[in-house]
Amino acid sequence: MLAHGNGGRRMRELIESVFARHLANPSLDVDRDAAPLDIAPGMVPFITTDAFTVQPLEFPGGDIGSLAVNGTVNDLAVAGALPRYLTLAAIIEEGFPLARLERIVRSAARAAEAAGVRVVAGDTKVVPRGQGGGLYLITTGVGLRAQGPAPGMTGIAAGDLVLASGTLGDHGIAVLLARQEFDIGGSICSDCAPVTAYTSAIVPIPGLRFMRDPTRGGLASVAHEIAAATGLGVRLREQDVPVRDAVRSCCTMLGYDPYYLASEGRVIAVASPEAAPRILAAWRALPGGGQACAIGRIDGEAGPVILDTAVGGERFVEELEDDPLPRIC
Amino acid sequence: MLAHGNGGRRMRELIESVFARHLANPSLDVDRDAAPLDIAPGMVPFITTDAFTVQPLEFPGGDIGSLAVNGTVNDLAVAGALPRYLTLAAIIEEGFPLARLERIVRSAARAAEAAGVRVVAGDTKVVPRGQGGGLYLITTGVGLRAQGPAPGMTGIAAGDLVLASGTLGDHGIAVLLARQEFDIGGSICSDCAPVTAYTSAIVPIPGLRFMRDPTRGGLASVAHEIAAATGLGVRLREQDVPVRDAVRSCCTMLGYDPYYLASEGRVIAVASPEAAPRILAAWRALPGGGQACAIGRIDGEAGPVILDTAVGGERFVEELEDDPLPRIC
Repeated sequence: MLAHGNGGRRMRELIESVFARHLANPSLDVDRDAAPLDIAPGMVPFITTDAFTVQPLEFPGGDIGSLAVNGTVNDLAVAGALPRYLTLAAIIEEGFPLARLERIVRSAARAAEAAGVRVVAGDTKVVPRGQGGGLYLITTGVGLRAQGPAPGMTGIAAGDLVLASGTLGDHGIAVLLARQEFDIGGSICSDCAPVTAYTSAIVPIPGLRFMRDPTRGGLASVAHEIAAATGLGVRLREQDVPVRDAVRSCCTMLGYDPYYLASEGRVIAVASPEAAPRILAAWRALPGGGQACAIGRIDGEAGPVILDTAVGGERFVEELEDDPLPRIC
Repeated sequence: MLAHGNGGRRMRELIESVFARHLANPSLDVDRDAAPLDIAPGMVPFITTDAFTVQPLEFPGGDIGSLAVNGTVNDLAVAGALPRYLTLAAIIEEGFPLARLERIVRSAARAAEAAGVRVVAGDTKVVPRGQGGGLYLITTGVGLRAQGPAPGMTGIAAGDLVLASGTLGDHGIAVLLARQEFDIGGSICSDCAPVTAYTSAIVPIPGLRFMRDPTRGGLASVAHEIAAATGLGVRLREQDVPVRDAVRSCCTMLGYDPYYLASEGRVIAVASPEAAPRILAAWRALPGGGQACAIGRIDGEAGPVILDTAVGGERFVEELEDDPLPRIC
């Protein structure tokens, strides 16, 4: 009901019975306006925010709750910070089933626990029927990083290698198939997961230049960001980019390009040729890291983003224009 | 277009031409995943989040942009923290006019400057036509407070006074009239504004127990929160609660109770009888503070929230049940 967002009794009951119950932790006090953050000496807090409007709200391998936690956790992780605190705002459409809300909040709570973050503040709004897509979640995360220089695009140089921590596009295709707009079966699960173990493992390795999670816009958008920021080219090798057979089949059937598909539990890194083998070894030693590999290199000569195709040709990978898959996150 | 939220070229252009242009500051770098926060030694960061779904998006005295900034700034201020950083997430409905978006973002930027906060991170999502109410904004704020004890409800005792920094309910009625659902004219402006000057002025005064901004659910909800948390009663004096004549007239005509109306630029404080005159003097010395006054007291005997009426009777002020004015913030 709209009254669940009005600041009165029903809102208090909703917050207590659903949000506070599942997200309870020593830092969450629903009676306060603002929550204190404990920042250890010598650490710099980093902040990031993301709004989640994925459809459908639940899909194989995750839901909007786990996605809202992991998406923000991962933005902190690829910035080299250890995710610590989250805020969670919910915009709920009038008529949304309470049981479904509770299932999603429980999933968010589990994801927060798995990622080692505490939800310390929240807000709940209810919008009229037809104006909310069911549920939107918005998370803001604070992570901590030791003082000192951090990975960033400014260190990228020609000859550096581009690395992927695992298969790409699983999340995009899992959400697509869950919409059941296409008569395609299959058991593709989203890769939605925290990448903190993957980023923590490689942050200390000298020669690591840059990390990013290839979410909206996929690998192609990360490559274009690198090219735009550095003035260098990015050259990817089609046969080295890890894409599951099932994902590739879906792309072929539907005319999608896997390089634009979102992943929600992967890292793209750029590193010096000396650092790359150490990074890949560190990733491969982690659970789920068996498919980590080098997928391309930074190239001073080539146009912004080039793909060396499996048959020996090359093609431009354009910046994403029209959205092949809206509302993927 | 939906493509403005897809992570590709159009999204980059929208962010550069609207969000980054107006919100530009040395801490905003739209190419990063996460932004660092500078926390001075000895200061504790506090965090809060709020989603804004007000309808209409623009109203006399403010709009969803200034409201999204001030609402979060004020949650930090009443926690005794000095607001410093904001994140801003926008959920935009497909088809929303760019000119209107730009007007609202510009208003948010002005409000941030006036409140002394920097927008350091953001996110943009576009949802299909009919699923977004035009525009939702979600802000998260970080403020700083010196280490040490802070105002809180635990210090409240019977005999303490309840204080208001100005007239109540202006925002609620301004938004209501802007909807033009009722054939009522009038020139009531929202009180939407940062309360930082009001909170900073009184935080150092010994005997200040507690501060809160009476937004959703109004004064009545603040009073019920106090009663629930302390086990004490709150007794308000009808003739002392400052409500503009025009606001009172609207309430009479429409059958609303002004004690439930939202304000977005006011503070309710609880203080010892010794501290109260100092707090009121400090508030009255501030621009716009001329109507600050004591409006009631904490009462160990009475039921949760009692109103001493102007005609000499008393009535219970119930906890808010059904929403008289949905989507006020």
